[in-house]
Amino acid sequence: MTIGGPASRRPGATTPVTPLVISADGSRRPRSDVVATEEPLEIRVAHRGREHQVAVTMRTPGHDFELAAGFLHGEGMVRAREHVGKVSYCASGPPEQLYNLVTVELAAAAPFDPQTMRRAMFTSSSCGVCGKASIDSVRASGLAALPDGPVVDAAVLLSLPDRLRAKQKVFERTGGLHAAGLFEPNGAPLLVREDVGRHNAVDKVVGALLLAGKLPARERILQVSGRASFEIVQKAAMAGIPIVAAVSAPSSLAVELAEEAGMTLIGFSRERTLGVYTGPQRIA
Amino acid sequence: MTIGGPASRRPGATTPVTPLVISADGSRRPRSDVVATEEPLEIRVAHRGREHQVAVTMRTPGHDFELAAGFLHGEGMVRAREHVGKVSYCASGPPEQLYNLVTVELAAAAPFDPQTMRRAMFTSSSCGVCGKASIDSVRASGLAALPDGPVVDAAVLLSLPDRLRAKQKVFERTGGLHAAGLFEPNGAPLLVREDVGRHNAVDKVVGALLLAGKLPARERILQVSGRASFEIVQKAAMAGIPIVAAVSAPSSLAVELAEEAGMTLIGFSRERTLGVYTGPQRIA
Repeated sequence: MTIGGPASRRPGATTPVTPLVISADGSRRPRSDVVATEEPLEIRVAHRGREHQVAVTMRTPGHDFELAAGFLHGEGMVRAREHVGKVSYCASGPPEQLYNLVTVELAAAAPFDPQTMRRAMFTSSSCGVCGKASIDSVRASGLAALPDGPVVDAAVLLSLPDRLRAKQKVFERTGGLHAAGLFEPNGAPLLVREDVGRHNAVDKVVGALLLAGKLPARERILQVSGRASFEIVQKAAMAGIPIVAAVSAPSSLAVELAEEAGMTLIGFSRERTLGVYTGPQRIA
Repeated sequence: MTIGGPASRRPGATTPVTPLVISADGSRRPRSDVVATEEPLEIRVAHRGREHQVAVTMRTPGHDFELAAGFLHGEGMVRAREHVGKVSYCASGPPEQLYNLVTVELAAAAPFDPQTMRRAMFTSSSCGVCGKASIDSVRASGLAALPDGPVVDAAVLLSLPDRLRAKQKVFERTGGLHAAGLFEPNGAPLLVREDVGRHNAVDKVVGALLLAGKLPARERILQVSGRASFEIVQKAAMAGIPIVAAVSAPSSLAVELAEEAGMTLIGFSRERTLGVYTGPQRIA
């Protein structure tokens, strides 16, 4: 599996896609569109001749040096401009990952405590941290093979965002939560979980299935309240869920992984049509 | 600093707050409200008598055992129900963190490769990973002291979401990006960055300031497109930014840290009034 940017081309902030747009009246037409690019960025720190791997975050390419510097500042690893030397894409990594590796050189006189590394690894940041280590291990850890089915009516899929919202108890009071819901192919809700973190909401759904001995969930649809990132698709694929629908747009890497996994990945447009990015054969 | 749930009370999914609601006409009134609770959850795995710290994630309390189990499944550390033994709150941790520590015991026969731990630490997941290690180190690493000012017109603050949106180049094309913008007290935009990860967008803004030698940013306002989490407030506080405004609601821990740091934290209501959660003295 090749996931991640091409060898030598610098990735842009958007990636062209051609979802199949399915309307409530049953019409289907491909539409040229773009999605936000999502790529791993590994942040390294070099100090006194030693290079340390600090964190990997999923990010949209662009302003990568600022991202690396800002991340290290937030972690307390860089405090002042004069502590920063050269910031560069890391030529010592694999060439196909050139633009996904940034090294921040610290001035020799800069204070640097390798002890902070451990914390940085924990905080390694941002929605759906993962990156190359994670990307590589998707195959290594073995995605569940997704089934051919189920085949679901477009009308059912179009109804899921409202059904999810109807089950979001805390959201209505706070406006502050992501939700993930598991549905049957006929649209019946099985399980809805909420969390400040969208990935946590998916983990809660998958964990409930695991603890109930109901994995893999081969006849289920996962509807999420926000956007579909790489990590959402990855967690669903690990759980054997064949259809993932997001209220907002997917990222480039979410589309790429869904394609690779044989998953049906759906985003909704403002006009409440389905944007089917991968796997349209599961939609009747 | 005491951040995190109280000693023995099980935290709920929402936390009561009383923001000061400021309207365009200048009226100010306190409103009883709730925000989504955000608390760190440390996930541990016990296997053959050894306990391993796997990850810390910021989450909304509730369904914690499912969250821990689901997270481990997504990481490939737990594959099947029969590999899971007891799941419990971890009594061996500090009592005030009782409900923030979950240990998943694996069956002795379950496959467990400590090598996967490293990956799990990188992926440790979810918007704004951090948790206790991070929370403790906020004080350890030293938040920048925030200035008393600036004092900003409510009308300026009310205009910032539209000003931010006007600068979001990629969002209009993809609908898939978070944005963070830095503004002057008169509302003039200085810097806007976009990313699939909201924390990355903030890191890009802070990194740009750092590399330009412009930290701390004591006379600036940070406007973010989404919700305000603990980590957003933390990154801004580290950068010395005194006013943070979010288009949606803040989390409980964001409010708590903003209070502690002496920051002004704002969320917008649907009626386009300001909800001022902390630091109203900076609003004219």
